[in-house]
Amino acid sequence: MKNELPRNTVVRLSQYRRLLEKYKYLDEPYIFSHDLARMLDLKPVNIRHDLMLLGISGDRRKGYSVNALLEKIGESISCPGHGIVLVGMGRLGLSLIDYINNSESCVKILAAFDVDPAKVQTPCEAVPAYSIFELRDYITKYNIKTAILTVPSEETNDILPILLDAGIKGILNYTSEQLIVPDDITVRNVDVISFLEEIAYFVKE
Amino acid sequence: MKNELPRNTVVRLSQYRRLLEKYKYLDEPYIFSHDLARMLDLKPVNIRHDLMLLGISGDRRKGYSVNALLEKIGESISCPGHGIVLVGMGRLGLSLIDYINNSESCVKILAAFDVDPAKVQTPCEAVPAYSIFELRDYITKYNIKTAILTVPSEETNDILPILLDAGIKGILNYTSEQLIVPDDITVRNVDVISFLEEIAYFVKE
Repeated sequence: MKNELPRNTVVRLSQYRRLLEKYKYLDEPYIFSHDLARMLDLKPVNIRHDLMLLGISGDRRKGYSVNALLEKIGESISCPGHGIVLVGMGRLGLSLIDYINNSESCVKILAAFDVDPAKVQTPCEAVPAYSIFELRDYITKYNIKTAILTVPSEETNDILPILLDAGIKGILNYTSEQLIVPDDITVRNVDVISFLEEIAYFVKE
Repeated sequence: MKNELPRNTVVRLSQYRRLLEKYKYLDEPYIFSHDLARMLDLKPVNIRHDLMLLGISGDRRKGYSVNALLEKIGESISCPGHGIVLVGMGRLGLSLIDYINNSESCVKILAAFDVDPAKVQTPCEAVPAYSIFELRDYITKYNIKTAILTVPSEETNDILPILLDAGIKGILNYTSEQLIVPDDITVRNVDVISFLEEIAYFVKE
């Protein structure tokens, strides 16, 4: 039953949901795929295809029901209480804790880890902080499946085996290292340099 | 001459380059597309297609020449001295300044802006910091084309018109707002919640 939607569809469904949650407050009960497309800089054909995969069809004259979309998307990509750990409590790590745990997403950071005892002892955030030596036990104990990696690149190869050993199946990788992992592990790289080099390419005159 | 490569190709070229710059130190003169694919979690067919667009063909038995790849990619997506501004000097903004300006990319942050005078007066980073009131003039004066937006979401609609008015053509958007912009503006959204919700979908049992 699981893993039946294509990767890009899942990403877009998550984007639709967050846009529609704001759109809801406009009291517009319907939305057209081309409006969704414009607001999200996507192609209408992709949106219609994604929604078809969920078994949702729009009304030719009115568009898609916003409530029906939210309900169906919720059923498809809900992740009730999906708790994650964050490794690396630098500026980036702390800003992500703030951002993610204050969002309305069902994904929440439950604990943060760092090699630096000083960072761990300063309870600066709304999550408990632990030494890296407790990482493996924490993941196992709470059956955590997803980790965010915000350590300096040179620490990546020390941390990765701990995560995999402890049972982590998905990693959001903010380091500039490419993670070499088994096939059953999902890795997404947040690669700000690639984003910027792409923009630079398109804005050049 | 410009804007001839597809968007996804440009993103991947940037990824190839950064991987190959590290790979170079292994003293391996050749690399196969399937090795690049494995290291970057991409499909070999996409890689071969991208490299074909650059007019590079591999040797069936040896693979692609690493130096030739780096040279051709450099010609295609070089961005010499592509200076950008960053708006929003919170934790995320400061961590990005660190990261980007210490990378080997040709993209560099030249100046940072914030509404908060306290943040602007603390010269904590290697870039000059200015009040948001100086944003428009700075962009015009230095002919800046790209901006990174790391302000709180509720400030987005105040900042966006200033950027567009001043001549910004590309925006890397870290806010959770969808930016409504004219067709000639390139926007990329860094959407950590979508990344995480996608991972959560695929790691669920």
